[in-house]
Amino acid sequence: MIKLTILGCYAATPRTLTNPTAQLLEIKNHMFLIDCGEGTQVQLRKHKIKFSRINHIFISHLHGDHFFGLPGLVSTFRLLGRDKELHIHGPKGIKEAITMLLKLGDSWTNYNLYFHEITAKESVLVYEDDKVTVETIPLNHRVYTNGYLFKEKKGLRKLHVEAVEKYKIDKVYYQKIKSGKDITLDTRETISNSELTIDPDAPKSYAFCSDTAYKPDIVPIIKNTTALYHESTFLHTQEDLAVKTKHSTAKEAATIAKDAEVGTLVLGHYSTRYKSIELFKTEAQEVFANVHLAEDGKVFEF
Amino acid sequence: MIKLTILGCYAATPRTLTNPTAQLLEIKNHMFLIDCGEGTQVQLRKHKIKFSRINHIFISHLHGDHFFGLPGLVSTFRLLGRDKELHIHGPKGIKEAITMLLKLGDSWTNYNLYFHEITAKESVLVYEDDKVTVETIPLNHRVYTNGYLFKEKKGLRKLHVEAVEKYKIDKVYYQKIKSGKDITLDTRETISNSELTIDPDAPKSYAFCSDTAYKPDIVPIIKNTTALYHESTFLHTQEDLAVKTKHSTAKEAATIAKDAEVGTLVLGHYSTRYKSIELFKTEAQEVFANVHLAEDGKVFEF
Repeated sequence: MIKLTILGCYAATPRTLTNPTAQLLEIKNHMFLIDCGEGTQVQLRKHKIKFSRINHIFISHLHGDHFFGLPGLVSTFRLLGRDKELHIHGPKGIKEAITMLLKLGDSWTNYNLYFHEITAKESVLVYEDDKVTVETIPLNHRVYTNGYLFKEKKGLRKLHVEAVEKYKIDKVYYQKIKSGKDITLDTRETISNSELTIDPDAPKSYAFCSDTAYKPDIVPIIKNTTALYHESTFLHTQEDLAVKTKHSTAKEAATIAKDAEVGTLVLGHYSTRYKSIELFKTEAQEVFANVHLAEDGKVFEF
Repeated sequence: MIKLTILGCYAATPRTLTNPTAQLLEIKNHMFLIDCGEGTQVQLRKHKIKFSRINHIFISHLHGDHFFGLPGLVSTFRLLGRDKELHIHGPKGIKEAITMLLKLGDSWTNYNLYFHEITAKESVLVYEDDKVTVETIPLNHRVYTNGYLFKEKKGLRKLHVEAVEKYKIDKVYYQKIKSGKDITLDTRETISNSELTIDPDAPKSYAFCSDTAYKPDIVPIIKNTTALYHESTFLHTQEDLAVKTKHSTAKEAATIAKDAEVGTLVLGHYSTRYKSIELFKTEAQEVFANVHLAEDGKVFEF
C-alpha cells in the first residue's frame, strides 16, 4: 500500500487556510517528502509526522512555493538533535542555496547532509534500494523541473500456506521457496515452486508531476502508474494563461492520466482565483473517470 | 500612539501554535515589519494587515527563525502586483541571500527592491523622515545582530485654541504659531508663542532587542524608551544556557528595563522548554514592575 498525505497543494503563496506544495509519501516503510513550500514543517507537526522518519526529500524545482520551507526544516532537524543522514534531491543550485543560508547564520547541521543535484534532461534513477526505486520525470516549466516516479519493486512470491503444510516443509526453506525455488523433499520428490507459492501483490507506483505545461511525452514514463498527481493550476477557460505560465489545465492533466492509463488521478496546485476546486474535478472527469482532488490534510491510500 | 502587533515571539522553529519572531510596528502612519520568521506572511494575513502598507522591513540577524519568511514575503509582494519600493534593512549578506533565492527560481521583483546592509558596530541611524527615526542597537549574539530603536520626532506645538480666538488671529498664521513663532497683531502688539500654544505630546519610542546576551551597554541608547521588547529565552535557573547560547534570562531583561528606566517591558523569544510563559513575567517583576508578555497575535498600544 502507498499512503499519500497532502501537506499543501495550492499554487503560489501560503495563506491562512491553504499551503504551497508539499506531500509526504509512505511507501515500503519509507517516508519521502516531496517538495517543501514555506510552512511545511508546521504541516508535518499538524499531522503528527515524526521528523526523524524523513530521510529523503525530493524537490521538483526552485520556485519559492516548492522549496522555501526547506531551509527552516533543515535547521529544525538540527534543533531536534537529528543524527541520521538527510538526503536532498533537487535541481542544481539547491546545495548552494541551503548551504549559503545556513552559513549566513554561522550554523551548520550536526547530522550528515547530502545533496543530490539533478541536471539530466531525460528520466534518470535517483534512488534505489531493495524495495523501491525513484526516477525523475522531466517536466516543462519556466525553470528546470522534474517530477518523480516512486515504484515498489516486485516482492517475493507468497507462501501457499496449505501446500507448504501438506508437504510438512521445514520453516528454514520458506525464504528459498519465496524466492521462487523448487523444493526436493526427503523422499527425493521435487515439488515445483508454482505449487508452493502464489503471486506477490502487484507492485504499486506513484507519479508526482508539478509544475508543468501539458507534456504528452511523459506518458511512456508514467504508463500504468497506480496513482498520478498532476498539477492543474487552471481550468480550460484559462488555457491561454496555462500556456503562458507553463502550467496545465484540469483537462490536460486528465488527458495525461487517460493516455498513461493510470489507476487514479489526483489534481492539485490550484490557482486561488477559482471559487471552488470542484470545478477542476468536473472538468477532468469529462476525460478521465477516477479523479480525486488534493486538499491540504487529505490522506490517500492506493 | 505606537501600536505593536506580535506576529510571532517564540524561539527557534515554527510550530502549530507558535511562530518565530516577527512584529509589526505602527508608528506615525508607518507600518514597519521587524524580523520575518518562516510563516510571517500567513500571520500578516491572519491579522488582516494590508501587505502594501509595508515599505520597510528591519531584520535583526541572519538566523533562520528571524528571516526565513523573508524570501516568501518578497515573492508574494510580486504576485500581489506591488509597484511601490520595498526597503530591507539588515546585516551584510541579506542582499546576496534574497537575490540568490529569487535568481534560482529565474524570477525577480516587478517593484524596486532596496537592500540597506548594516555593518556598524556602534548605533547608527538607518532611517529618518520628518516624523520618525530608526537607529540600530548593537546586540551581542552568536552572529552579528542589531536591535532597532524607533523614535517619534518631537511634533509641532499645539494651538491654545482659546488664546488664538481671543486675539482673533487669522488661520493663515496657525502653522507659524505651531512652529514656535511669536505673532505681531495689527495693533503692533506682540503676543509671545508661549501664550498661544501648549506643549506637544511627548514623542514616543520603541526599542526592539532580540536576540542578545545580557548587554548593559545598550542602556544609554534605550534610556527612557516608552516601550522595550527584550528577549528572554530562558529563566534565571537556566542562566548557564543563556550565557552559552548568548541569550538573556527574564531577570536580565528586567534589569536592562530598570536601568534604562523604560516605561513598559515586553518579554518574548521564549524557549519552548517551559510549561508556562507566566514564569517569565513572575521572574521579571521581581526586578521591574511594568512587565507584559508577548504572545502571538497580541496587540500593544503605547
